[in-house]
Amino acid sequence: MRRCNQCIVERMDSPVPLIPQLAAHLVAAGGKRLRPLLTLAAAKLCGYPGTAEGGTRHVALAACVEFIHTATLLHDDVVDESQLRRGLASANAVFGNKASVLVGDFLFARAFQLMTADGSLRVLEILSRASATIAEGEVLQMATQNDLGTSVERYLEVIHGKTAALFEAACRVGAVVAERPQLEEDALAAYGTNLGMAFQLVDDALDYAADQAELGKTVGDDFREGKITLPVLTAYAAGKEEERLFWRRVIEENRQDENDLEQALDLIGSTGAIAATLDQASAYADRAARALAVFPDSPLRRLLADVASYTVSRGR
Amino acid sequence: MRRCNQCIVERMDSPVPLIPQLAAHLVAAGGKRLRPLLTLAAAKLCGYPGTAEGGTRHVALAACVEFIHTATLLHDDVVDESQLRRGLASANAVFGNKASVLVGDFLFARAFQLMTADGSLRVLEILSRASATIAEGEVLQMATQNDLGTSVERYLEVIHGKTAALFEAACRVGAVVAERPQLEEDALAAYGTNLGMAFQLVDDALDYAADQAELGKTVGDDFREGKITLPVLTAYAAGKEEERLFWRRVIEENRQDENDLEQALDLIGSTGAIAATLDQASAYADRAARALAVFPDSPLRRLLADVASYTVSRGR
Repeated sequence: MRRCNQCIVERMDSPVPLIPQLAAHLVAAGGKRLRPLLTLAAAKLCGYPGTAEGGTRHVALAACVEFIHTATLLHDDVVDESQLRRGLASANAVFGNKASVLVGDFLFARAFQLMTADGSLRVLEILSRASATIAEGEVLQMATQNDLGTSVERYLEVIHGKTAALFEAACRVGAVVAERPQLEEDALAAYGTNLGMAFQLVDDALDYAADQAELGKTVGDDFREGKITLPVLTAYAAGKEEERLFWRRVIEENRQDENDLEQALDLIGSTGAIAATLDQASAYADRAARALAVFPDSPLRRLLADVASYTVSRGR
Repeated sequence: MRRCNQCIVERMDSPVPLIPQLAAHLVAAGGKRLRPLLTLAAAKLCGYPGTAEGGTRHVALAACVEFIHTATLLHDDVVDESQLRRGLASANAVFGNKASVLVGDFLFARAFQLMTADGSLRVLEILSRASATIAEGEVLQMATQNDLGTSVERYLEVIHGKTAALFEAACRVGAVVAERPQLEEDALAAYGTNLGMAFQLVDDALDYAADQAELGKTVGDDFREGKITLPVLTAYAAGKEEERLFWRRVIEENRQDENDLEQALDLIGSTGAIAATLDQASAYADRAARALAVFPDSPLRRLLADVASYTVSRGR
């Protein structure tokens, strides 16, 4: 991971000063680097040496995955008009929307340069497909915004695109560099997909539950944006007629006043919508852990299974 | 070109309806499709068969080039807050900034999927590097905005990044699919770079000269945005102290009132800034035509040389 961070810093560099400046802001903001960790862990679980002699392709590819993720974060924050990211001022708040759009484009292009330097068409195929799926997921999310008629299936499609697709690709790439049989590649892909689904469900639950300082983001962001997430769909479906009128006003008509977030939190609490969302997340986390069964038991396999259950426990 | 357009329409498709809708808007807006034409022409000049038996890789790669270009246009219009593109309402004006950012990302990812399907790492290297250079050029342009202290060299660096890099890559890719010697590849790359420089210089001149209907964009866009282009740098350098105060107020301090565009057009006219810009463009166009000297004389070679001089003549 140290080498991956080094690669990230090196390859974010550019003769255009604003690019490393904005990049430094992102690096300083930290972040869990969960996705590149998945690539490194998947490669290791598949027995990839990860040494100068045996091969260190996983390091640069983990950096690629983080670049793609960072590019989408930069563009997300522009699209969502977010002011905070990981508890710090978001890049668009500090550098403006224009810089965020363009540096996002740079990071995306840089990711493809890194992949091309790696030289595996299979890796390029996995990560370019994931990138297209992410963009489709984001567009679909935009199209469902403010629409309480969105089905749960459609919502799951959105979070699959915007989150699970890159988790899947991050894991799959690890198996590919280790040149493991399709069975193991597919197992890691299934682990990644299900972990990504669990991760996003928990994130969506936390937006109606967490303490801002702890989460590193503003509670109620999704609410204010009229984003359709499982907590809202659940509370709406379970709500009495009067409650449904409330949801229609605040989400569909986007007319919110200052006490509405509190009422939304109450309704989401009283209808058990958070618990229901976390139960769904838990089911995906279980599927993620079970997908690892094709690998022999090992401390790393147990660690990856623990990551899945930890993902859900941060929401409980 | 018909096959390339077909490929563009097919590969813009997505199960997410907003993507083909926005894509249809772009296709309807037309555009010259100059960059994909360059890829097709370069391949043909290098003797690439372009038939089902001999190979049609240039068609999909020409579509890639247009996708990359379209993605940057979508993001540019967001960054510049443009209302018009090619004489029609810009995509951001119709569909909003969010959709433009995200569909741009989709097109960029789709371009890399197409390149990966082509399977040439050399092509991937050329187009991923060009994509990173474009983003750097756009960021540099943003950094020079409103700065009359920008040197002409820096301005040329900006237009090399934002425009010439993709012209170069579009041409180079044509030579690569034809598997021609480095000499021919480099000649076509030089043609593309110089043509791109000429093209952007003329575009920047037209922003202070052309009739809006003819140009398909609003005259004075660059002026209103405080964009630093050669006409402004030339008029500023040649201006009397009083004129320089004018330029500082309208460009550096960004304080403009309704008669300022007219005064700017007058000053640019009286200092010969348009003619000077077009002379520069003409020099680049000549270099572009001369770069083709390594190829035997042919109608296609003459056509490409004519494209270079036509590029400049549209500004005269």
